[in-house]
Amino acid sequence: MTRLTLALDAMGGDFGPCVTVPAALQALASNPALNLLLVGDPAAITPLLAKVDSDLLSRLEVVPAESVIASDARPSQAIRASRGTSMRIALELIKDGRAQACVSAGNTGALMGLAKLLIKPLEGIERPALVSVLPHQQHGKTVVLDLGANVDCDSTMLVQFAVMGSVMAEEVLELKNPRVALLNIGEEESKGLSTIREAAAQLKEAPSINYIGYLEGNDLLTGKTDVMVCDGFVGNVTLKTVEGVVRMFLSLLKSPASGPGQKQKRSWWLKWLGRLLQKRLSKRFGHLNPDQYNGACLLGLRGTVIKSHGAANQRAFAVAIEQAMQTVRRQLPDRIAARLEAVLPKSD
Amino acid sequence: MTRLTLALDAMGGDFGPCVTVPAALQALASNPALNLLLVGDPAAITPLLAKVDSDLLSRLEVVPAESVIASDARPSQAIRASRGTSMRIALELIKDGRAQACVSAGNTGALMGLAKLLIKPLEGIERPALVSVLPHQQHGKTVVLDLGANVDCDSTMLVQFAVMGSVMAEEVLELKNPRVALLNIGEEESKGLSTIREAAAQLKEAPSINYIGYLEGNDLLTGKTDVMVCDGFVGNVTLKTVEGVVRMFLSLLKSPASGPGQKQKRSWWLKWLGRLLQKRLSKRFGHLNPDQYNGACLLGLRGTVIKSHGAANQRAFAVAIEQAMQTVRRQLPDRIAARLEAVLPKSD
Repeated sequence: MTRLTLALDAMGGDFGPCVTVPAALQALASNPALNLLLVGDPAAITPLLAKVDSDLLSRLEVVPAESVIASDARPSQAIRASRGTSMRIALELIKDGRAQACVSAGNTGALMGLAKLLIKPLEGIERPALVSVLPHQQHGKTVVLDLGANVDCDSTMLVQFAVMGSVMAEEVLELKNPRVALLNIGEEESKGLSTIREAAAQLKEAPSINYIGYLEGNDLLTGKTDVMVCDGFVGNVTLKTVEGVVRMFLSLLKSPASGPGQKQKRSWWLKWLGRLLQKRLSKRFGHLNPDQYNGACLLGLRGTVIKSHGAANQRAFAVAIEQAMQTVRRQLPDRIAARLEAVLPKSD
Repeated sequence: MTRLTLALDAMGGDFGPCVTVPAALQALASNPALNLLLVGDPAAITPLLAKVDSDLLSRLEVVPAESVIASDARPSQAIRASRGTSMRIALELIKDGRAQACVSAGNTGALMGLAKLLIKPLEGIERPALVSVLPHQQHGKTVVLDLGANVDCDSTMLVQFAVMGSVMAEEVLELKNPRVALLNIGEEESKGLSTIREAAAQLKEAPSINYIGYLEGNDLLTGKTDVMVCDGFVGNVTLKTVEGVVRMFLSLLKSPASGPGQKQKRSWWLKWLGRLLQKRLSKRFGHLNPDQYNGACLLGLRGTVIKSHGAANQRAFAVAIEQAMQTVRRQLPDRIAARLEAVLPKSD
């Protein structure tokens, strides 16, 4: 397998190096063809590498960065003052050809802005979108975008998201003629925001898109569509809502006897069998655990940039690194660029 | 208990009288002080009453309506052509003092528009909002609004929703000084849509509102707030997303052995114990079953109007009728009007 080098914004996210460094080591251990550039404060990173195996260390380089973009910074201000930050340097490593992709759990708006500035959008794409692939009830997957890169979206942006999502479903999910839907508050044509209705009118006329109409929030996980398109505000709230409900169920499954007085009533064999069954149920539900699909791809750029959840734990951040590797191996940006040329109207 | 008369739009919703009539009979049977006016096509309703107990029949009256507003009709057109429809007549029964509340599973936009026209908003309220009370993880409840009455919302509307939601939490959940949050895509002040940031600035200055800041989608069910405020588009998508995920989990719980090849491997006693445990889990999760909290109240009107899910089944529509009864008994519109007078700035 060809070697792969990724740049990690080691300082981003709620926990910084405490999560990113162990996750990096985990990824190195399970991928012998992987090299990592850890961008950040050496004083914070190197102590975490003290007892690390020399093989792993040989495939890891600490790239110093003086500062970090705060997760609550205003993106526009953060971008102006971004020189020397771990996020910017990680992106510059792609630009300079030293890394093939970058992973950051930092400020979403700043990552989006800096990526546009340094990596540049593909031709014909106004604004990149955050995209993720969610598991659905029919044991398949759905491409969902935008998950928060663009808070305000016009109809042209929604149509571009539909095109990018459709290409991603073809390339990543290996689906022919993937179904594309717009997320709305009803399935009737007259429903919803005017931007969505305008996007629907454009998508109906697009010969290369298999547009199937509006779907509602309850259809996000039913597998009725292969691509679900929405603006970044709605997508972000929706994804986090799904995560919240799934986490609640998983935590309830882990402790079904935590209700007052229930524990005492159970005999040991019922407890034992209960645990057995819970394990089975957890296995069934486990594929919906948000940690297992962490890492949204910033789609529509000339390179691969993966945004991890700010609150990601080690396991989740390692999943985001895996995502970056797969995206690079699949040459997703190149493939999308090639398809976009055929699909999108020429600007000249 | 004082007698109560409700008007039901018997023709509204995906299933019309097939759901509304059995639900009406169910509600009459369990509430001896209830009278119902079933508004709709007698030819469709009366056959369903053929074998009904005479006591129930004596508390039920069919009010004829010539037509029905289609659920996919454009609200503005539907309202112009609403004379003689079951929804309009049901609302007129409140206006004329013959009914104390109305329940409809019909077109949300038309119900909102007609209710504003016929029942009138409370003083100081621009636009009523659809509100529902969702169970959360901490065994309490959260008031969530707007759930779809207003697709486009400005900051003033969001502030009014916050006030109404706060009063509802005090009156219905019996909470003192309920916490109020705005649903956003991050907890930092700079995040999200400008309307939300403007509403936040106003809420911070409102002495009567216990505003606690932004919360994200994953906090909808965690119980971090007593009132969650958002625009109708986001609220509708979010609520339906929650419902979709909950339904998926509940259906998986009901058939945990449906995976290929699993059924054969289980012995009878494991199956039996499995069912026992599933029952317990279903009981734990059951309070999140969307059917059990069907019925969103159109808050901010001078009367009680309850919107049921269009796809409601008999049980869910009966819950919406119960909701209407409770809202009337609690005199919610009067109480909100009284509190609004104290809280909202005078328009003159």
